[in-house]
Amino acid sequence: MDFLNQLKNDIEIVENWLAELAPKGGGYHSIIFESANYSISNGGKRIRPILAMEVCKLFDGNMENVKHYACALEFIHTYSLIHDDLPCMDNDDLRRGKPTNHKVYGDALAVLAGDGLLTYAFETVLKSPCNKNVEAGLCLAKLSGFDGMVGGQVIDIIGSTDKEMLIDLHRRKTGALISAGAYIGAISADAEEKDIDNVTQFAENLGLAFQIKDDLLDILGDEKTLGKPVGSDKDKQTFVDFYGIDRATEKLNEISEKAKDIISCYGNKSEFLIQLTDYLLNRNY
Amino acid sequence: MDFLNQLKNDIEIVENWLAELAPKGGGYHSIIFESANYSISNGGKRIRPILAMEVCKLFDGNMENVKHYACALEFIHTYSLIHDDLPCMDNDDLRRGKPTNHKVYGDALAVLAGDGLLTYAFETVLKSPCNKNVEAGLCLAKLSGFDGMVGGQVIDIIGSTDKEMLIDLHRRKTGALISAGAYIGAISADAEEKDIDNVTQFAENLGLAFQIKDDLLDILGDEKTLGKPVGSDKDKQTFVDFYGIDRATEKLNEISEKAKDIISCYGNKSEFLIQLTDYLLNRNY
Repeated sequence: MDFLNQLKNDIEIVENWLAELAPKGGGYHSIIFESANYSISNGGKRIRPILAMEVCKLFDGNMENVKHYACALEFIHTYSLIHDDLPCMDNDDLRRGKPTNHKVYGDALAVLAGDGLLTYAFETVLKSPCNKNVEAGLCLAKLSGFDGMVGGQVIDIIGSTDKEMLIDLHRRKTGALISAGAYIGAISADAEEKDIDNVTQFAENLGLAFQIKDDLLDILGDEKTLGKPVGSDKDKQTFVDFYGIDRATEKLNEISEKAKDIISCYGNKSEFLIQLTDYLLNRNY
Repeated sequence: MDFLNQLKNDIEIVENWLAELAPKGGGYHSIIFESANYSISNGGKRIRPILAMEVCKLFDGNMENVKHYACALEFIHTYSLIHDDLPCMDNDDLRRGKPTNHKVYGDALAVLAGDGLLTYAFETVLKSPCNKNVEAGLCLAKLSGFDGMVGGQVIDIIGSTDKEMLIDLHRRKTGALISAGAYIGAISADAEEKDIDNVTQFAENLGLAFQIKDDLLDILGDEKTLGKPVGSDKDKQTFVDFYGIDRATEKLNEISEKAKDIISCYGNKSEFLIQLTDYLLNRNY
C-alpha cells in the first residue's frame, strides 16, 4: 500500500475507534455528550493516535492493546482545544472552519465538556484490556499536566520573550502529547526500554519540527494569500519572529532530518513513520 | 479521644498529606503551581479525604494505602471549585472569605490550574503504593466525570425544574465525590464487596443530607442575619424551594438516620462516622 493510502486507512481506523469509545449517555445532562462529541468529531489530522498505532505496529504490537490509549490521547487533545479556544484564553470563534465549542454550547458547557473529556480520557485508559494501564495513565497525566501541555499553555498565556522560552513552550504544549503518542504505542507493544526511549526522542523532534512548520505556514500562508505582515494575527511570538524565515526553515530541516535519522534504525519497518514525517513537514495547510 | 479532637487530628493529618503531595515545580510556568496551591491551601472541611481515611480505618487498612487516593479526591474537589467559581459558571468573587482563584490569577490561569489539578489527581492515584490504583482511578474518573460531578454541574447550569431533577443534580454534583471517598477508603483497606457497597450507600445518603443541610442553612442563615427572601442570592432552585423548610428538615433527618443506620452495623468501630454524620448535619456554618 502506498503512503497516502495507508494514511487514509489509518485515519479510518482511528475514526472508528473514536466512534466506538467516545463518551455516550442520556439523562438530564445529556447535552454535555453532544457538546463533547461535537468537538471529537470535528476532523483534525489525528496525528497523535496514528503515531501511537504506527509505533505499536513497529514493535509488532496488538492493535487492541493500543486502541484505548490512542483514543484517550485524542480526547485529551480535544479537551485542550476546547479550553484553548475559550474567550478567556485564545478567544477563537472558528476551529477547522466550524464554530468553536463555546460558540455553539456557551462558555460554561465548553469548560465542562473539556473537564469531562479530560476525566474520561483517564477512564478510557484504565478500561483498556492492555496490561500497561498504570504506565499509560501516568505518561498521559505527566505529559498533559502542569509540567507538560498545561505548562506550555501557561507559557503561551504569559508570552515567551526569547528563543529558550519559546522552545520550552512548544516542547510542553505540542511536543509533550506527540511524544506521549510514541510512548504509549511502544509500551502497548511491550517494547524494550531502549526502543521506548528511541521512539520518544523521534517524536520529540517531530513535535518541535511540526510547530516550526506551523509558524512558517502561518507567515507564508498569510503573506501569499492575505499580504498581512508577520505576526499580525496574534500577539504571540513565533519561531519566525526569533529566527527569521530562512533560519527557521533551516532549523525545520535539521530537526526533521534528526527525527528521521533516529527512527531509521528499524529499517523497512520505519518507512511509514519516515514518510509521515516528510508528509507533515512538507504540508501546505 | 473525643470526637472533636479526633476530627481535629484527622484534619491535621490530611493537611500534612496535602502539603506533601501537592503539585510543585519551577520553570517558566511556575506561576501555575502557585495558583493551584493557592486554592488547595484555602482551608475547607476536607470531608472527602477524611471520609476516605476513616473508612480505610474502619476496615483496618494501612494509612499509606489511602493517602494518595484521599489527596487525589481533594485535588479533584479543588479543581471543581476553581472552575465553578469562573465568571462563565457561578461567577463568584469570594470562596471561604478569600478572593477566588480567577480574581487573583485571572480567568485563563484559573482554567489551567483546574485542568492541571484534575490531571495531577490521576497522576497522584497512579503513583500510590497501594495495589488498587486502577480501581481507584476508575472510580474517581467515573464519579467525577460526565455521569458524575461534571454531569451534576451541567444540570446546575441548565437549572433544575422539579424534585427529581434537583435530586439527580445533587447526587451527581456533591454525592458522587462523597461516595467516591467511601469507596476508595474501602478498597484501599481490601474491604469485601458487601462492605464496599455498604459504606458507599452510607456516603450517598450522607452526601444528599449534606446538600439539603446546605440549602437549609442558606435560607435560615439569610433570614436570620439579612432578612433576605428565599432564593434571592441565586436563581437556583433548592430543596427548600421544592419542599418548604419543614418538609426539607424532615427529609434531612430521615436521610441522616438512614445513613447512620447503614453504618451502625460495624458497632463501636463506626462511632466516629456516626458522630461525623451528626456533626455535619447539625452544623450552623
